[in-house]
Amino acid sequence: MAKKKTILLLNGPNLNLLGKRQPEIYGRLTLGEINQQVQTLAKELNVEVECRQSNHEGELVTWIQEAPAKFQAIVINPAAYTHTSLAIKDAIIAAGLPTIEIHISNIYKREDFRHHSHIAGAAVGQIAGFGVQSYLLGLRAALAQIAE
Amino acid sequence: MAKKKTILLLNGPNLNLLGKRQPEIYGRLTLGEINQQVQTLAKELNVEVECRQSNHEGELVTWIQEAPAKFQAIVINPAAYTHTSLAIKDAIIAAGLPTIEIHISNIYKREDFRHHSHIAGAAVGQIAGFGVQSYLLGLRAALAQIAE
Amino acid sequence: MAKKKTILLLNGPNLNLLGKRQPEIYGRLTLGEINQQVQTLAKELNVEVECRQSNHEGELVTWIQEAPAKFQAIVINPAAYTHTSLAIKDAIIAAGLPTIEIHISNIYKREDFRHHSHIAGAAVGQIAGFGVQSYLLGLRAALAQIAE
Amino acid sequence: MAKKKTILLLNGPNLNLLGKRQPEIYGRLTLGEINQQVQTLAKELNVEVECRQSNHEGELVTWIQEAPAKFQAIVINPAAYTHTSLAIKDAIIAAGLPTIEIHISNIYKREDFRHHSHIAGAAVGQIAGFGVQSYLLGLRAALAQIAE
Amino acid sequence: MAKKKTILLLNGPNLNLLGKRQPEIYGRLTLGEINQQVQTLAKELNVEVECRQSNHEGELVTWIQEAPAKFQAIVINPAAYTHTSLAIKDAIIAAGLPTIEIHISNIYKREDFRHHSHIAGAAVGQIAGFGVQSYLLGLRAALAQIAE
Amino acid sequence: MAKKKTILLLNGPNLNLLGKRQPEIYGRLTLGEINQQVQTLAKELNVEVECRQSNHEGELVTWIQEAPAKFQAIVINPAAYTHTSLAIKDAIIAAGLPTIEIHISNIYKREDFRHHSHIAGAAVGQIAGFGVQSYLLGLRAALAQIAE
Amino acid sequence: MAKKKTILLLNGPNLNLLGKRQPEIYGRLTLGEINQQVQTLAKELNVEVECRQSNHEGELVTWIQEAPAKFQAIVINPAAYTHTSLAIKDAIIAAGLPTIEIHISNIYKREDFRHHSHIAGAAVGQIAGFGVQSYLLGLRAALAQIAE
Amino acid sequence: MAKKKTILLLNGPNLNLLGKRQPEIYGRLTLGEINQQVQTLAKELNVEVECRQSNHEGELVTWIQEAPAKFQAIVINPAAYTHTSLAIKDAIIAAGLPTIEIHISNIYKREDFRHHSHIAGAAVGQIAGFGVQSYLLGLRAALAQIAE
Amino acid sequence: MAKKKTILLLNGPNLNLLGKRQPEIYGRLTLGEINQQVQTLAKELNVEVECRQSNHEGELVTWIQEAPAKFQAIVINPAAYTHTSLAIKDAIIAAGLPTIEIHISNIYKREDFRHHSHIAGAAVGQIAGFGVQSYLLGLRAALAQIAE
Amino acid sequence: MAKKKTILLLNGPNLNLLGKRQPEIYGRLTLGEINQQVQTLAKELNVEVECRQSNHEGELVTWIQEAPAKFQAIVINPAAYTHTSLAIKDAIIAAGLPTIEIHISNIYKREDFRHHSHIAGAAVGQIAGFGVQSYLLGLRAALAQIAE
Amino acid sequence: MAKKKTILLLNGPNLNLLGKRQPEIYGRLTLGEINQQVQTLAKELNVEVECRQSNHEGELVTWIQEAPAKFQAIVINPAAYTHTSLAIKDAIIAAGLPTIEIHISNIYKREDFRHHSHIAGAAVGQIAGFGVQSYLLGLRAALAQIAE
Amino acid sequence: MAKKKTILLLNGPNLNLLGKRQPEIYGRLTLGEINQQVQTLAKELNVEVECRQSNHEGELVTWIQEAPAKFQAIVINPAAYTHTSLAIKDAIIAAGLPTIEIHISNIYKREDFRHHSHIAGAAVGQIAGFGVQSYLLGLRAALAQIAE
Repeated sequence: MAKKKTILLLNGPNLNLLGKRQPEIYGRLTLGEINQQVQTLAKELNVEVECRQSNHEGELVTWIQEAPAKFQAIVINPAAYTHTSLAIKDAIIAAGLPTIEIHISNIYKREDFRHHSHIAGAAVGQIAGFGVQSYLLGLRAALAQIAE
Repeated sequence: MAKKKTILLLNGPNLNLLGKRQPEIYGRLTLGEINQQVQTLAKELNVEVECRQSNHEGELVTWIQEAPAKFQAIVINPAAYTHTSLAIKDAIIAAGLPTIEIHISNIYKREDFRHHSHIAGAAVGQIAGFGVQSYLLGLRAALAQIAE
Repeated sequence: MAKKKTILLLNGPNLNLLGKRQPEIYGRLTLGEINQQVQTLAKELNVEVECRQSNHEGELVTWIQEAPAKFQAIVINPAAYTHTSLAIKDAIIAAGLPTIEIHISNIYKREDFRHHSHIAGAAVGQIAGFGVQSYLLGLRAALAQIAE
Repeated sequence: MAKKKTILLLNGPNLNLLGKRQPEIYGRLTLGEINQQVQTLAKELNVEVECRQSNHEGELVTWIQEAPAKFQAIVINPAAYTHTSLAIKDAIIAAGLPTIEIHISNIYKREDFRHHSHIAGAAVGQIAGFGVQSYLLGLRAALAQIAE
Repeated sequence: MAKKKTILLLNGPNLNLLGKRQPEIYGRLTLGEINQQVQTLAKELNVEVECRQSNHEGELVTWIQEAPAKFQAIVINPAAYTHTSLAIKDAIIAAGLPTIEIHISNIYKREDFRHHSHIAGAAVGQIAGFGVQSYLLGLRAALAQIAE
Repeated sequence: MAKKKTILLLNGPNLNLLGKRQPEIYGRLTLGEINQQVQTLAKELNVEVECRQSNHEGELVTWIQEAPAKFQAIVINPAAYTHTSLAIKDAIIAAGLPTIEIHISNIYKREDFRHHSHIAGAAVGQIAGFGVQSYLLGLRAALAQIAE
Repeated sequence: MAKKKTILLLNGPNLNLLGKRQPEIYGRLTLGEINQQVQTLAKELNVEVECRQSNHEGELVTWIQEAPAKFQAIVINPAAYTHTSLAIKDAIIAAGLPTIEIHISNIYKREDFRHHSHIAGAAVGQIAGFGVQSYLLGLRAALAQIAE
Repeated sequence: MAKKKTILLLNGPNLNLLGKRQPEIYGRLTLGEINQQVQTLAKELNVEVECRQSNHEGELVTWIQEAPAKFQAIVINPAAYTHTSLAIKDAIIAAGLPTIEIHISNIYKREDFRHHSHIAGAAVGQIAGFGVQSYLLGLRAALAQIAE
Repeated sequence: MAKKKTILLLNGPNLNLLGKRQPEIYGRLTLGEINQQVQTLAKELNVEVECRQSNHEGELVTWIQEAPAKFQAIVINPAAYTHTSLAIKDAIIAAGLPTIEIHISNIYKREDFRHHSHIAGAAVGQIAGFGVQSYLLGLRAALAQIAE
Repeated sequence: MAKKKTILLLNGPNLNLLGKRQPEIYGRLTLGEINQQVQTLAKELNVEVECRQSNHEGELVTWIQEAPAKFQAIVINPAAYTHTSLAIKDAIIAAGLPTIEIHISNIYKREDFRHHSHIAGAAVGQIAGFGVQSYLLGLRAALAQIAE
Repeated sequence: MAKKKTILLLNGPNLNLLGKRQPEIYGRLTLGEINQQVQTLAKELNVEVECRQSNHEGELVTWIQEAPAKFQAIVINPAAYTHTSLAIKDAIIAAGLPTIEIHISNIYKREDFRHHSHIAGAAVGQIAGFGVQSYLLGLRAALAQIAE
Repeated sequence: MAKKKTILLLNGPNLNLLGKRQPEIYGRLTLGEINQQVQTLAKELNVEVECRQSNHEGELVTWIQEAPAKFQAIVINPAAYTHTSLAIKDAIIAAGLPTIEIHISNIYKREDFRHHSHIAGAAVGQIAGFGVQSYLLGLRAALAQIAE
């Protein structure tokens, strides 16, 4: 029997505050509630998802480095590190797993410094602007990547 | 009985050549084959999708202007006009329909001039880099927008 | 008896939606209503005005090229093409008619990408920010140019 | 009986030399002659216009600050201060009167440093390139603003 | 007997006005007269040339897309679209025919905005500054490409 | 008995309008009321403060030049001249008194052109964003400088 | 009896070396000695201050996130993270406490890369250049913010 | 008998402090002492020189405007206004007298913002870096211009 | 009998290595072989061509300066000096001969620093990207220039 | 007997993956194998080397801060933090030990964002592009620094 | 008896063509004639001047390196190398002689690429725009430098 | 018996002045003394080194072109040509020998214009900032390259 696919869902700094902070930008769902919706879809798609969050760039780097031992793909919302972390970019390239970059808000509608993503050049693709749907679409995109 | 939702799927210049041109970037599916996959998913999601393609910026503008009369959302792959057309951007803002910007390739991995999208500032969000999956995810994103 | 002066009034992309779109920026008058006010003033000033609108850059280019055969001046609101069309600029230079660039909104108060006009370098002058008055002042300015 | 509207017409540095300097750019009319044409039109439009000129940025700032006590609108040709004075810009915002920015020459056809106006962001709109007509059109524009 | 080579000669916006507009920049020959000189040389070189002009970006895109069915090479003077059209660039890449970019004037001696060509990156090479000779040299260059 | 310290408090253009203009940015206190609060604190700190305001760059320059004859430190809110006056910067360097730059609003939260201060490079330090408190903190900072 | 106000005083990377490193820039006081002066003033102002330092961006982010549970305001000297951390900026916005940005040295007198603060856009205001006084003024500014 | 030539020597803001301020940059001579050396040379060269200084941009503008009535050439050290005043530039162009721009220090060896001169484009030429000699060489240059 | 036209063909640094270096960019022909093809065409066109190469900027400058004494036109492949030599540009302007700039490769398809030519602004026109054909087309272009 | 010199060898983020990731850029040696070669050379040069790696910017900062207590020099390969960490730069300056910056790859041959090093301004010098040799040369350079 | 001062007068590329090339920019005097005027003034000032010209950057570098053995000052018109040669700049710094940079034309009135001088940062000062007078004033400036 | 390896050591402009010029930047050793240290190490490493210096860009180009006939590697200190010579870069690429770029000073600590190296993109790697050690380390690096 084929083993279930497992996907790592990473959340960057301040996403542990989701639902409490700037709901007009980030929506009213907490990270826990988003994770629940992700798990519901994961069950429907017969895939396992492990959800982690960290405020530490270095911890995110380490998690990405270790991912190939357990996961077939990564979905990552790098939050502020999208724009400042080359270490995460290099970790994604080094890990070699198909990686989907997601954003809750449409970063291209916000301040200029949020328009450039260091991560985009290392990811398969990017999904931005759809709130919790960015997570759900990201999960589908990751699964499609594994299937290829 | 609730009326079926209808979505306009727009394709910009040169996308009529899909499958024939630079398959290493744009994949091996023709626009017709992509459209078939879109229609299959549309049936599954109980939504109608109308697929059009034009090489003319002005024609795309007109189609977007007329969309509110018949459609509830727009999914658009603006191709080269992504980077050069403010008229399409203004048309999307004027039409006022939720609009999803999609790209077959990850534009942030390509030449510098493809990194900036005029359209992004007018769209709900952006999906880029997943080949035909960008269309399918775009359809799901549009449907979720209508549902909101 | 001296022949009546004739002026071509050109409107660029999306201006056919005037009055329906973003009234806080573009006002509540439709293009038809603006045209009526223009015609009223034209009668008062004893000049003929022909009003056209197109979403196609190429069509605007062609109209400008053909203008010298029938018109003594051009008043143009190039809308989004203000910022992206060198073809219209070249057409204005080639046509050689005194051309007045007008804008409904004050483009210098809006997004950065609306601050630069390709057309300005080919026009006699620019009138921006006065709503329908931009059209009326533009007509007066054109007439003054012909008189010189 | 309704009180006559009064408009302040301000001229920035070196405009006292009009007609004597670079006639190929600024025309052959002196500031006095331009003022006469303005007064003729003012009489026709039943409005009062007070014309002042200063080479001092600070004096222009003070006049603008004091304007609301006596005037309903400002027409200003800021000349060189267009490109260097934020103090005038702030004064216009603080005064809160509808302000029309005018230029004799088409500043967008001249040296690069004349393409950017600090004033434009504080003005209702801009009229540039029509010689003495810029003053006359500016007066009409100001009157239309008051009427709104 | 070997079939005659056929070359598509495309002219962009405003080139239909050649000979009538800015002769100090573009020379005194009309597009018809240039075409005659091209045909004379074509006969001498035993090649067929089809000459077209359009003011529409979209039409030029379509012609380039269709070219491989009938032509072995393209010579294109993109005029203003040189600097603003990525759609034409993408069409040239997609068509895959050897394409020669030509300009009547030396674009590097003119305004800054004419120094950058979107087309150059998709063309075999560029010939600029030789008036009608740019067309004749372009034809020779195209023929040499086909021969390779 | 030690002589009382005396501090010059300078206010740049348009600050005479404080309390009347854009209260959401500059607060509701007039310059007179701010001065009263400053004098109250000055009495408490046993220091003399002389408050002046000018719309003239040249007058501010002169006052700064003359300051060493009477004052031990300068507190300056240069307003719009913050971003445009090198003459004031040079005057501060020439005067050689410890100079504290203050701003009512947080200039780094406002338009881009307000982010750069010519004065900062000549001042001991900068206090920005605290409304009337910027004046009171500035006074304390000046006093601490004198004490060193 | 009203509860005492409590303020979080955060110090970024390398500030644990204060007094030992580059005294010509950062002064001769250690962080412990600065903290003592802060506590003395806190007692005088009847406020509690908790002083922390970290070299870890992620730890600073976490402390800021947790601050609202215990503190009414934040005073932060972000040191090098001033110029590189968007995560700290986002944490400040999310925490929603009035936050005062302080710097020992006048960052606008130093290297170019120290002129831009990511934090400034999220803070109430900024105090820079006064050595230990920056801490003391920052404490006063924070208290004034709480009082509002 | 031929009338003596008369030259206007203008000094910009803060130059009244010469000799007292930053002698390592500006030397130890006061403006009075420099003027004496200028007058000595003027006598030797049989020319009259009138020396003025102002901290006011507007006053310098006015003096330049009035110069043609009395002077045959201008020597100007615009100091800080070199880099910020377009009004002085326009006044020089309008006055039409041969104008020599001088600087005591070599502005190209100092801060970046001192490398660009607005005045240079309006002056015959520039002499910078020679201390009081810049004045003496400037006088000789002006005389040579008059002689031409 | 009319004297034969003589053309100077100049080659810049490293072109003596043609055929041995990076054949995928510069082709497999040596400079000697290219010269032979040029001479063959020269004979056919009844023109004399003198071919020189130098690695020294100064030597190229001198050759261009001396050219008018013997040649009617210059064809130059400036190689790396295209992008770094203003001295060669000035020499071409000074010499006053019609000068054709050629490049073996399409410099607009290569690294960014090869996109800008100092020479282009001094040349009649530019031919780039056609390998040895760039030399042959350059010869024809030069001859056409002489004929004018 | 003179005490043996001790050198701290620091490795930044993702270098723990050396030998496993992008061998075409970083070579096939693991960090352990590189360390062995370093230790072999250290023994030969009679110096002690302690090798550490961290993905955490803050941990690297702390290690550098503590280095003076035990080490005479630092050799650091900052990896991705080369381009994003000012905190590491400040730590190096504060620590005051001679510090050698090394890179396995030639960062100037790679993507633009890898061309700028924040660290270089704080290091004695830089060695880049020699694979494991960068480490060995770095050790020699550090030893030479200590010897000075 | 005091030895006569000796000054080296260097001329950069293309200045050997003076008087023959672009007289509207460079005047009608040949380098020989300029040199004569220089020698006349040198005799008057009792100084020896040696005049050299080279098209070779390397030769100019060598002459500057050797200058201290024979000369007390350098006057240099670097022509095109003004804008492209760091080697000449470094040579001037290394030679350590007072060096006067001169230009015949006002380089700040010409093309943008002539506005920046690499040499200015190494020279005592700059004299530009006075034709042959630039040489004569340069000689006086050099003599004044030696006298100091 | 294996033939001894031979390495070409090139020195760019002004390095013949080493030891005499700016010792605080370039040290107190002459080029001759550095060469002696290099020869001592070469003997130790059993390699031959030929040391040359030139002020002429063209001569350096020629030497690099000729190097493959006699040398197995190049060590080059391009001095000022580092930042201005593309011809040397192209020569290095064309020669195809492993080339080591060295600098005596840490160019990244100096003026901005010294931060960018044209040569780096063509070299194996770069060693900067170690004085004479840069030469010795460069020799070792070159030898390691040959060994590979």
